[in-house]
Amino acid sequence: MQNSNYYCVIMAGGVGARLWPLSNNSTPKQFIDVLGDGQTLIQKTFQRFARICPKENIYIVTNKTYETLTREQLPELTDNQIILEPFRRDTAPCIAYANYKIKAINPNAVVVVAPSDHYIEKEDVFVDVIQKGLEITSQSSCLLTIGIQPTSPNTGYGYIQYDEDEPLAGNPSVYAVKTFTEKPELEMAKSFIDSGEFLWNAGIFMWSIETINKAFETFLPDINDLFKQGEGLYNTPKEREFIDHIYQVCRKISIDYGIMEKADNAMVYAANFGWSDLGTWSALYDLQKKDDKLNAVVGNHVKLYDASKCVVNMPRNKVVIIQGLDDYIVAENNNVLIICKKSEEQQVRQYVTDVQVDFGREFV
Amino acid sequence: MQNSNYYCVIMAGGVGARLWPLSNNSTPKQFIDVLGDGQTLIQKTFQRFARICPKENIYIVTNKTYETLTREQLPELTDNQIILEPFRRDTAPCIAYANYKIKAINPNAVVVVAPSDHYIEKEDVFVDVIQKGLEITSQSSCLLTIGIQPTSPNTGYGYIQYDEDEPLAGNPSVYAVKTFTEKPELEMAKSFIDSGEFLWNAGIFMWSIETINKAFETFLPDINDLFKQGEGLYNTPKEREFIDHIYQVCRKISIDYGIMEKADNAMVYAANFGWSDLGTWSALYDLQKKDDKLNAVVGNHVKLYDASKCVVNMPRNKVVIIQGLDDYIVAENNNVLIICKKSEEQQVRQYVTDVQVDFGREFV
Repeated sequence: MQNSNYYCVIMAGGVGARLWPLSNNSTPKQFIDVLGDGQTLIQKTFQRFARICPKENIYIVTNKTYETLTREQLPELTDNQIILEPFRRDTAPCIAYANYKIKAINPNAVVVVAPSDHYIEKEDVFVDVIQKGLEITSQSSCLLTIGIQPTSPNTGYGYIQYDEDEPLAGNPSVYAVKTFTEKPELEMAKSFIDSGEFLWNAGIFMWSIETINKAFETFLPDINDLFKQGEGLYNTPKEREFIDHIYQVCRKISIDYGIMEKADNAMVYAANFGWSDLGTWSALYDLQKKDDKLNAVVGNHVKLYDASKCVVNMPRNKVVIIQGLDDYIVAENNNVLIICKKSEEQQVRQYVTDVQVDFGREFV
Repeated sequence: MQNSNYYCVIMAGGVGARLWPLSNNSTPKQFIDVLGDGQTLIQKTFQRFARICPKENIYIVTNKTYETLTREQLPELTDNQIILEPFRRDTAPCIAYANYKIKAINPNAVVVVAPSDHYIEKEDVFVDVIQKGLEITSQSSCLLTIGIQPTSPNTGYGYIQYDEDEPLAGNPSVYAVKTFTEKPELEMAKSFIDSGEFLWNAGIFMWSIETINKAFETFLPDINDLFKQGEGLYNTPKEREFIDHIYQVCRKISIDYGIMEKADNAMVYAANFGWSDLGTWSALYDLQKKDDKLNAVVGNHVKLYDASKCVVNMPRNKVVIIQGLDDYIVAENNNVLIICKKSEEQQVRQYVTDVQVDFGREFV
């Protein structure tokens, strides 16, 4: 029997720019069957959380551009479970909005907030960790994050430094947080790993509605005030108009920067469930099947000659000949082709910007 | 006033496999504006020869698959000027067929036979050489070819060894031929160049109908007999049925191997008019405009980062990002993409075969 106070907010408004052109503005990666196993990432995410919370307690927050995609891919959702943002304002406003909607329904809610587009290898471990985390946050007023034991000095992730001397009574994997850090340079990332005190920030948060509301009041009072004005309107026909109005004036800020880095009640649950943010082509490559030359190929008509360690992602029926490439990304989607060294994959975001500036929004 | 005995046969049945996928079975390179100057190669070839022969004396021989393309691109041709082959049988049957058609109209014809898909830089020089060649072949019973002064040990061309001590009286650029050689290995090609006795075989021939007919009788009597049976049918409604019938039994053989290499009356006109067979991606690259990193790019939405000496040929509106390639071919046409080192371009023909075997004829 699932706990009816347990809620889940799945954030699905991002565009996955570093996986462009596979992921793009019109179909971001959460809506794609990235791993080719028959389900999109958001469908898998929903099913994972359906093992933890009642299905009717799972909310998707996304940009209104993606309303149709969301409805198509998750037809079991009611209208009220699809929270539509009129503009992108990063994670703090997104979470504040979901909080007020859930609070109006159940002020005793305990909520897990998670991205819609990550990979979880060991689902049973994941479910266990989240259930324990929700139990913890229903009993203590902490802001609990998930920290992943790092396996490489990845510069694409944020890091969480934790205080080994301060594990939570009752759960030896939960620690007080010392610092949150943004994506580091490589040397910094290496020293993080060497110190043994840092975990990858998986962007998964757990808290009670009461605790997170207090944090907003303290650290982001302007945003809290905006959303508070809507009390009485959430989950009613007037919600949309109100939201369209306040999003215009709401500033853009992440929950990490706006609250987590400043709060003194941040805790981290150190976990290992085989996690990847699937944020870059290498991250995808790492999870794919390889041929004997270590190429990971998606596409039915791809032929490789003297090629190794490439990640190739082409439309199913396109004929592709690749000769003489080692450690490259070759990907096409929506009439956009990219050929790029894997080692330069952090530049992909810049290429997206360049293409948008030079050729127009329709290509990104 | 053009000489009404001068005729031209333009051979347009090839597929340009080494320029695949730009050139392919459905639209071979002669029907493409390969150099992006607004005219297809066959249109340019036709116009060049229209400066030499009366337009009504210019014949196109092509596969019947390309009848529509030929009519569309050369609307001034009458039906009888488009000679359609039911099967590919290489150049000797193609030439025998054209000979008999022209002989039935004008037994005093002097003919220039030329490919439809080559590049000529200096058209005035070319016109002058062909006019002089036709004059020579109308007066003497020789089989005259054009030999191009080589500028590199290109292994994609056939070579003609000529006898410097035997220039033709009256034209110091025309010599007796010692040998014709097929495409050589690189070391052989280098020694050809060093010797100073070899020219590139441009595949352009001139002869009187009488002289070439005698050569067919002598060296390819089986083929001559087949086509001779049709005398009385050429240029009549019965021609097509007859041709469809004999092509089924006619063997495949080139004019070079079948006649030129064996004849003792072969002559070569050494010429320099800026010639390329446009046979490979490098040949095309050599003629294209380059950017400051020596990339030759066709496509309106191509962005290059750390790329040099590449030949890029993409559909006009496709967005393409290329990072970190040096000296590569990147080309797409008809839903086929190739990425290949320029140094491996002679393999392209093999890739075409592999794709046809593995994925089907529709992709080549």
